[in-house]
Amino acid sequence: MLHRIDHVGIAVTDLDAAIERYRDTFAIEVVTRETNAEQGVREAMLRLGTGSPAPASYVQLLEPLADDTPVGRFLARRGEGLHHVGYAVDDVAHELEALTQQGIELIDQRPRHGSMGASIAFLHPRGLHGVLTELVQAARS
Amino acid sequence: MLHRIDHVGIAVTDLDAAIERYRDTFAIEVVTRETNAEQGVREAMLRLGTGSPAPASYVQLLEPLADDTPVGRFLARRGEGLHHVGYAVDDVAHELEALTQQGIELIDQRPRHGSMGASIAFLHPRGLHGVLTELVQAARS
Repeated sequence: MLHRIDHVGIAVTDLDAAIERYRDTFAIEVVTRETNAEQGVREAMLRLGTGSPAPASYVQLLEPLADDTPVGRFLARRGEGLHHVGYAVDDVAHELEALTQQGIELIDQRPRHGSMGASIAFLHPRGLHGVLTELVQAARS
Repeated sequence: MLHRIDHVGIAVTDLDAAIERYRDTFAIEVVTRETNAEQGVREAMLRLGTGSPAPASYVQLLEPLADDTPVGRFLARRGEGLHHVGYAVDDVAHELEALTQQGIELIDQRPRHGSMGASIAFLHPRGLHGVLTELVQAARS
């Protein structure tokens, strides 16, 4: 079950410039910066709202580490903009199993490491009307 | 102030097929269907989670009423996929005033009518790293 929208991922050419723009425009703060070599990105998570009592949602800014990465190819093809949406789930492995039984095309057959220690998996945009979709199981706090 | 991600808007060529796919895949339900002639779309809002105690977030599916509409042109240019993100705010008119003072480029100079009775306004993607951005002030319940 999808609980809510956890984040939107935005592909950008210059992470620092994008952070500055989003922070100044919306008064939202960077909570983590990470490099994810497996996904080929440098990234920052900016938190919306206080996260209390409702869980927070995030703007994720993604700069590719190289042109021949998924985000690098996205930028070459379409320019900066919305790259994917992430939905919060309780148990990403359980969701992947259920989606497989429904015949939904996965990118990740099993969970992998995402931002802020989350377990994540991507679903293929082909089956979801062109939307690259991520399931996010937050790290236990 | 942006409280959270209210919804993602997804441009689709066939609203009924997209509703069926999202409903069946994620067990999320349509809460409203509307035609917005001003925006040139037929649309459906599908709710994530229960909305209690946290406010709900939504998947908004958008089918253009004609090719020469914003969503129609988006589909011709890029195909189906993520079209915009909507952030929840308390007072959209107040936010527009603050953004204008910061020099952020607006599409809507003043609030207009959105889904489910909300007051909404769009910000131009040019100033926000390619992301068409909507501010959403929910209708008083």
